[in-house]
Amino acid sequence: MASEFELIHRHFVRPTRHSVLGAGDDCAILAPRTGYELLVSSDMLVSGTHFFADAEPEGLGWKTASVNISDIAAMGGEPRWITLALSLPAADEAWIAALAKGFSACCEAFGVDWVGGDTTRGPLNLCATIFGEAPAGTTIRRSGARADDDIWISGQPGLAALGLQALLGNIVLADEARERCLTALHRPQARVALGLALRGTASAMLDVSDGLAGDLGHILESSGVGGVLQEELLPLNALHAAGADTAQALHALLSGGDDYELLFTAPPGKCSEVLTLATTLAIPLKRIGRITAASGLTLESADGTRRPIAARGFDHFPG
Amino acid sequence: MASEFELIHRHFVRPTRHSVLGAGDDCAILAPRTGYELLVSSDMLVSGTHFFADAEPEGLGWKTASVNISDIAAMGGEPRWITLALSLPAADEAWIAALAKGFSACCEAFGVDWVGGDTTRGPLNLCATIFGEAPAGTTIRRSGARADDDIWISGQPGLAALGLQALLGNIVLADEARERCLTALHRPQARVALGLALRGTASAMLDVSDGLAGDLGHILESSGVGGVLQEELLPLNALHAAGADTAQALHALLSGGDDYELLFTAPPGKCSEVLTLATTLAIPLKRIGRITAASGLTLESADGTRRPIAARGFDHFPG
Repeated sequence: MASEFELIHRHFVRPTRHSVLGAGDDCAILAPRTGYELLVSSDMLVSGTHFFADAEPEGLGWKTASVNISDIAAMGGEPRWITLALSLPAADEAWIAALAKGFSACCEAFGVDWVGGDTTRGPLNLCATIFGEAPAGTTIRRSGARADDDIWISGQPGLAALGLQALLGNIVLADEARERCLTALHRPQARVALGLALRGTASAMLDVSDGLAGDLGHILESSGVGGVLQEELLPLNALHAAGADTAQALHALLSGGDDYELLFTAPPGKCSEVLTLATTLAIPLKRIGRITAASGLTLESADGTRRPIAARGFDHFPG
Repeated sequence: MASEFELIHRHFVRPTRHSVLGAGDDCAILAPRTGYELLVSSDMLVSGTHFFADAEPEGLGWKTASVNISDIAAMGGEPRWITLALSLPAADEAWIAALAKGFSACCEAFGVDWVGGDTTRGPLNLCATIFGEAPAGTTIRRSGARADDDIWISGQPGLAALGLQALLGNIVLADEARERCLTALHRPQARVALGLALRGTASAMLDVSDGLAGDLGHILESSGVGGVLQEELLPLNALHAAGADTAQALHALLSGGDDYELLFTAPPGKCSEVLTLATTLAIPLKRIGRITAASGLTLESADGTRRPIAARGFDHFPG
């Protein structure tokens, strides 16, 4: 069996394109661009909590990179560098090679230099830290939503949640739909191009990792506002078409996580600008509600009746 | 029991001093200084591998920050920002509060802003990522050692290894020595001031985390040189005085990790400069050998006989 140093060198040391020094010393050395701010985020993925212990390693590598890159997209930044620290129960080289392949493929797809990390023995745990850049003052934060802003969502959130329910045997999906839902779950695509394009347009933004309602709750709380979602505007059709009933579709959309779509707000005057972006980037962008001065999150039916939504995301330690 | 968000907010969200935005959004926002390079390192500490499952949490928090800060010191950088991602089996608030207290205390001691991270459920695992800065081109790498350079070590490496052996019941230490060894093990002090002062003086440097011989091996390999350690120059007296016999002392010094002392090389002409630094900073700096053009690492006795040392550090996945 190869030693730790050999294993790391063989699979985890990759050529870098825009770094001063990659893996192999006490630190990687990066040269941030003058006039830019540096964006930093860490995500830890744990076996049994975020993925099944027997998860296919190449997909797991992709997803670990992708969910981190998504955090940069969510602030309108450009992803630049990433580190990966991981703890493994055993040095299974085929598994490690596949994980590194998937992680590296995602980094290359988004122009990110993989500059190092750490490898150790222990229960399976992956912790990536992503670094992005944005011209100073241009990031899109959670706190910028204002009353009367429109609420927008990209793509088709809810598919990953249906994929997970299908894996758990709680729902039966048609073959093609199942495939699409599992791809959303295992190979999420960070919305980097969209995040960059929304600079100067979106007033607040985040990526949906814990469910639309809970994550919208973070924007509302940070911005000190409330929101109304309009049921007839919610992108439920694709979830119905996949085989979900009304309750399942609504639950997958509002409470299911893991799609990494961008949820953002923008002033009503920017509406046509956003729709033009949707066409240019060929990404569905759907207006689903509006921000209110009064706090709280409600769901409004077509007939005008409103009911409150618990603006609570997935909580690893529920109270 | 408090929810994840409440727990994080209560203990892990600290005021920052030199950051644009700390914890609470998708990313932290930092403003790197113009003309500086950014140094980045991740370390993952796992229960059962790096510390005992019942480790005292405040000390564990300190150590997690300290070993990361040490990686910045090891390149002659100034530590600036840190993130902490952790996975916990349960939301034990007293434990979390103590961990956050120790981590935060170490950050404050070294002027580091704690800017965020991640919290999730799973086997106990702590992953910190540290960011430092150094004026462009001034970092001290592992690859700069040249033939005839002196090999230097700071402080008293080996104490932490003796402390660990005492905890394991493999060695009995006198009370005062035991206390000193356990402090070295549980509260390592990153050599930041020394690392900064060695810019322009040291030719190669790293921090000793896996044992002096193994870590020196990294310098030799990166620099394409060899080395001779002179047994009579090695700082073994304090280890003897603590209660270790000759074999135990030599093993603790050469193969014991976790002291986070700085191991560096410098041209012979810089000798008096280094000794002056030792006085100015009040840190013992000891010349213990020299770099050779021929590869390999040997230990030279007072009578001139030489024996090879396996230049291999602690390996989590031995072959």
